Amino acid sequence: MMNIGIIGYGYWGPNLVRNFVEDANCRVAVCDLRPERLAQVRTRYPGLEVTSDSSALIHDPKIDAIAIATPVSRHFDLALEALKAGKHVLVEKPLTSSSEEALRLMEEAERRNLVIMVDHTFVYTSAVRKIRDLVESGDLGDLYYYDSVRINLGLFQRDVDVIWDLAVHDFSIMDVVLPSRPCAISATGLSHVPGGQENVAYITAFFETNLIAHIHVNWLAPLKVRRSMIGGSRKMIVYDDVEPSEKVKVYDKGINLTNGSDNTYKKMMVGYRTGDVWIPQLEMTEALRCEASHFIRCVESGEQPITGGDAGLRVVELLEAATHSMKKHGEPVELAVRRGAAA
Amino acid sequence: MMNIGIIGYGYWGPNLVRNFVEDANCRVAVCDLRPERLAQVRTRYPGLEVTSDSSALIHDPKIDAIAIATPVSRHFDLALEALKAGKHVLVEKPLTSSSEEALRLMEEAERRNLVIMVDHTFVYTSAVRKIRDLVESGDLGDLYYYDSVRINLGLFQRDVDVIWDLAVHDFSIMDVVLPSRPCAISATGLSHVPGGQENVAYITAFFETNLIAHIHVNWLAPLKVRRSMIGGSRKMIVYDDVEPSEKVKVYDKGINLTNGSDNTYKKMMVGYRTGDVWIPQLEMTEALRCEASHFIRCVESGEQPITGGDAGLRVVELLEAATHSMKKHGEPVELAVRRGAAA
Amino acid sequence: MMNIGIIGYGYWGPNLVRNFVEDANCRVAVCDLRPERLAQVRTRYPGLEVTSDSSALIHDPKIDAIAIATPVSRHFDLALEALKAGKHVLVEKPLTSSSEEALRLMEEAERRNLVIMVDHTFVYTSAVRKIRDLVESGDLGDLYYYDSVRINLGLFQRDVDVIWDLAVHDFSIMDVVLPSRPCAISATGLSHVPGGQENVAYITAFFETNLIAHIHVNWLAPLKVRRSMIGGSRKMIVYDDVEPSEKVKVYDKGINLTNGSDNTYKKMMVGYRTGDVWIPQLEMTEALRCEASHFIRCVESGEQPITGGDAGLRVVELLEAATHSMKKHGEPVELAVRRGAAA
Amino acid sequence: MMNIGIIGYGYWGPNLVRNFVEDANCRVAVCDLRPERLAQVRTRYPGLEVTSDSSALIHDPKIDAIAIATPVSRHFDLALEALKAGKHVLVEKPLTSSSEEALRLMEEAERRNLVIMVDHTFVYTSAVRKIRDLVESGDLGDLYYYDSVRINLGLFQRDVDVIWDLAVHDFSIMDVVLPSRPCAISATGLSHVPGGQENVAYITAFFETNLIAHIHVNWLAPLKVRRSMIGGSRKMIVYDDVEPSEKVKVYDKGINLTNGSDNTYKKMMVGYRTGDVWIPQLEMTEALRCEASHFIRCVESGEQPITGGDAGLRVVELLEAATHSMKKHGEPVELAVRRGAAA
Repeated sequence: MMNIGIIGYGYWGPNLVRNFVEDANCRVAVCDLRPERLAQVRTRYPGLEVTSDSSALIHDPKIDAIAIATPVSRHFDLALEALKAGKHVLVEKPLTSSSEEALRLMEEAERRNLVIMVDHTFVYTSAVRKIRDLVESGDLGDLYYYDSVRINLGLFQRDVDVIWDLAVHDFSIMDVVLPSRPCAISATGLSHVPGGQENVAYITAFFETNLIAHIHVNWLAPLKVRRSMIGGSRKMIVYDDVEPSEKVKVYDKGINLTNGSDNTYKKMMVGYRTGDVWIPQLEMTEALRCEASHFIRCVESGEQPITGGDAGLRVVELLEAATHSMKKHGEPVELAVRRGAAA
Repeated sequence: MMNIGIIGYGYWGPNLVRNFVEDANCRVAVCDLRPERLAQVRTRYPGLEVTSDSSALIHDPKIDAIAIATPVSRHFDLALEALKAGKHVLVEKPLTSSSEEALRLMEEAERRNLVIMVDHTFVYTSAVRKIRDLVESGDLGDLYYYDSVRINLGLFQRDVDVIWDLAVHDFSIMDVVLPSRPCAISATGLSHVPGGQENVAYITAFFETNLIAHIHVNWLAPLKVRRSMIGGSRKMIVYDDVEPSEKVKVYDKGINLTNGSDNTYKKMMVGYRTGDVWIPQLEMTEALRCEASHFIRCVESGEQPITGGDAGLRVVELLEAATHSMKKHGEPVELAVRRGAAA
Repeated sequence: MMNIGIIGYGYWGPNLVRNFVEDANCRVAVCDLRPERLAQVRTRYPGLEVTSDSSALIHDPKIDAIAIATPVSRHFDLALEALKAGKHVLVEKPLTSSSEEALRLMEEAERRNLVIMVDHTFVYTSAVRKIRDLVESGDLGDLYYYDSVRINLGLFQRDVDVIWDLAVHDFSIMDVVLPSRPCAISATGLSHVPGGQENVAYITAFFETNLIAHIHVNWLAPLKVRRSMIGGSRKMIVYDDVEPSEKVKVYDKGINLTNGSDNTYKKMMVGYRTGDVWIPQLEMTEALRCEASHFIRCVESGEQPITGGDAGLRVVELLEAATHSMKKHGEPVELAVRRGAAA
Repeated sequence: MMNIGIIGYGYWGPNLVRNFVEDANCRVAVCDLRPERLAQVRTRYPGLEVTSDSSALIHDPKIDAIAIATPVSRHFDLALEALKAGKHVLVEKPLTSSSEEALRLMEEAERRNLVIMVDHTFVYTSAVRKIRDLVESGDLGDLYYYDSVRINLGLFQRDVDVIWDLAVHDFSIMDVVLPSRPCAISATGLSHVPGGQENVAYITAFFETNLIAHIHVNWLAPLKVRRSMIGGSRKMIVYDDVEPSEKVKVYDKGINLTNGSDNTYKKMMVGYRTGDVWIPQLEMTEALRCEASHFIRCVESGEQPITGGDAGLRVVELLEAATHSMKKHGEPVELAVRRGAAA
């Protein structure tokens, strides 16, 4: 039986609360500064302990772990306080506001032998797990591109731009699906709210191999689109997360290259190959449910989390590079080849 | 009655031939180097004059105008030869391989008082004309973004990259729909064919106003997508050209900005507005049919073409900038503010 | 403050419980025979009173109203017991297993001046309310047809056939949307489970006017479809309930009739009219939430329910006629013109 | 080299002309009563012979075969005249206005050893051929249902109702795809044009096995839908002909039946099975092109047509039964078990 204190009952917190409450191995307490949010917890879950004092919750000796679902700007302080109090920590994405903060948390967790895990929810979806398996199996052939569109109307964030809010999902997916990490980023974007953060952005990630990734994020789009394509030399995947079922389609499509026999063109000849489409059946378990179980297991057994502090750090570094390039209208920003950050 | 010689009966030529043949005010002759293509013309149109000698066709005194539907690399030479022979010219998009060539053709046409028109077909679709009217009416409010995805599997071109093949459509649409032209371009892309041209590219266009445009083009995508979004402060348009009908949707959606009353946040408060969607009825006439009639009218009456040499030049300049930036991994390329090129 | 006892915590009961729990004017108790279901209630709502004894709940003097979400076969007994105990009653659809039972409940409720309401949930959706307003406004012109497809894989019911499970939704929608009720029914269907109820059925409803209705229901379909069309002489509606937004589309389409001038054909000439499409914005409130509030208001104020016992009876009569015709391979069954059942 | 005379250049005739013209083994002449239609033929195909005299064409000794694409009411007279003149015949669907006429044509063709073929175009599509192969292979298990929706706005026919215009396609598909033919029909429908033919209809076909078929046809629908589902005990097919590609999807979905262990329910327990979806690649050849080649081959080699007079007759019998039942509001009409009609 694990006791978890969940800080922040705003947009995402209720999902954490619901999933930990429904796990039989877990007892939940909730913290939020706003009385009306706590009242809502009481109505829905008459038995839960609630508080507006995060420090009291963090230092409560009954509590084994802390989950943080506050605005990003508070992630670092709360997580550090929790680690110093000897608590395991689960932090909403993105892990922190900067890579320095992420490194600091990793060090603290390592020193105290505590679990630090970041809530990269998509990594735990059956769709992304299926895609990762497909890529790892080599069925796609050489990887050509990862292309993702993640747009809708709202929710404008006040403390982060659209890259930190939405592209973080794609960076976290790329982190588990792609065989290597980007070596440079070029990003462009714009804000349409005076004094506001960028609400539309386009990010290209370059790799040392012949792979390119692109992410389009937008808070001001008339449609909700959540579509990623992964192109390989043998097969291609389309992952449409708005589809109720049939989220992942595998296309047996591509090109065949042959040497041109034509005298005038010494170049490669390109032929097209179109075959069947396959839509694998996906498990229906809620991603956050899997993730909550995984966190509990890591805390109880010492297992390494799939999305530990190192994954959180790698994603924050990409977010920093993208924001940096966006301020310079797409000028490419190289990524330091940081090795063994957590080692 | 206008006599037109159409050079090139490959991918697009047959559409030109069909539309000019079905125009009662026009007589057509066809030129192609490949005997099997000419045989196909003879089977379909037993009465048409065919030839493999483009110079003979161009200098044929019966001929009033020449349409050029060859690979891009031959546009300039053939168009110049035709203009020098005193013939009006319609050229497949893009007008030329370089802005220098485009300027040279414009000068020649102007000096000889001949029509030079570029086949920016999308400009003549009922969808784009409707969108242009909606933007011009001011119904969208301030323009925020133009975002376009134009992807499918094939047709790899040998003499141009995917930007010159597909993004040219978006640049030509932007040229008539948007109130100003880009001031800088950042583009990224990659080739997956050894020794080949880039087959995937992402282009951001910056403007002096608070507008941003982005184009995603790909020859190696598992899906055929042709979708553009135009976001404004009051309304937003989605133009899905793959839809058989209901191509243009107008969304009464957006954000409302108010001054935050909150002490801690002095920034703008963002509210969301979601209203009805309106799908205007579009005329069913084939775009190329309208365009053919327009070309004939320009030749016969001296009217200025909607997509004249100047439009062709502007589009080629954007293509050049995009390719240039792409070679430098997204480094932004500024566009010369060329004024009165044709004046 | 109303006290409601909800009997049955199976497929639909949890939705009733959630919506009444979240209504501040209501206190909820839950009854189910199965201990594991009651355990689930306790986990989710630690404060709620639970019991496995429906009679005790029904006769509990604190309880003002009873909601019944059991299998259909138990609706009548439980509802009658509750009415006799002086409790207002909300019954899951369909109201009862037969029209005799429905009449009996209506009489009992009337004699005791109690509310009897049937949970025709779709009637309370913003989509159906919008459609009802559109039809009532006369904008559609003369009504030509109501056509509905309601299919998916599962959930096979043991005590009712697919008509009583799914077509009941369409009959309840037709009851509030259409200006008159059917005068005859022809239905066909089949069971694919040995000894089971029919799992696919097709129902045509005839009217005294020039209107026809058709309902296709299927528990064994590979796709989930929830699409109704309402055709009128001036406009047509498509209601697609699977769409996350844009559920209701209004088509300005139809035919124009003129007298043929042609000698050989003295008949009407048919012209086609295709205009804009309009997608009205719909409220996002959950239907069951509106319905719960409406039930509480009816109990507290004596207001007549929108879906009272009379609506429940009318729908059950159509279900009986459909099942009857289905057994006879589509032979039409006339509906008694029962007037003033509740009067 | 076959010489074919095509009678009727209205809606469908141009497709016949185009496909026979493009077949190198064929020379085409065209007949239509309307001068403006013949003028259109001359513009498109300057070399073709045209006439307004069908008898002259039929008796022209150069002519080997006659294709008839006139209104249905003229099919029989023209086909009989052609057969009597010793010509092979291809007739637009439906073969004739009555089964008596169809039988008469079959007898005449047989006696003279001439090919009579009906243009059941869908039978020659790659989609229907793929579906037929899937059904024949047994992969679907026991067949449960065939369900088809074929609706759109227009084209109202003057001499036939919507069943004879649209349901004919489904009957012709069922004729080659399903293992047995219907034994009874129940149909309902309505006309919304004063004095006109029914423009909406619903047809149920019963079989001696546990299979049911249903067809929904409508000339007055706001959407164009062409979707058929075939449900089997093991797999299910969805055939969406409006899809540009991905027309045929095979769902590994269904139910599993086990004997209930529960004392209270001695019935079968139903479990659900959801697996992968498979979208087979289809050939892109135009159906009418295949059909034209097949007709030429039958004429030249004496091969039996896939859609000969017997298929035409079987389909006309179903159409007659459907119209008959529709007039009686769904009363079922049994089909005579006619055997060896053509034998």
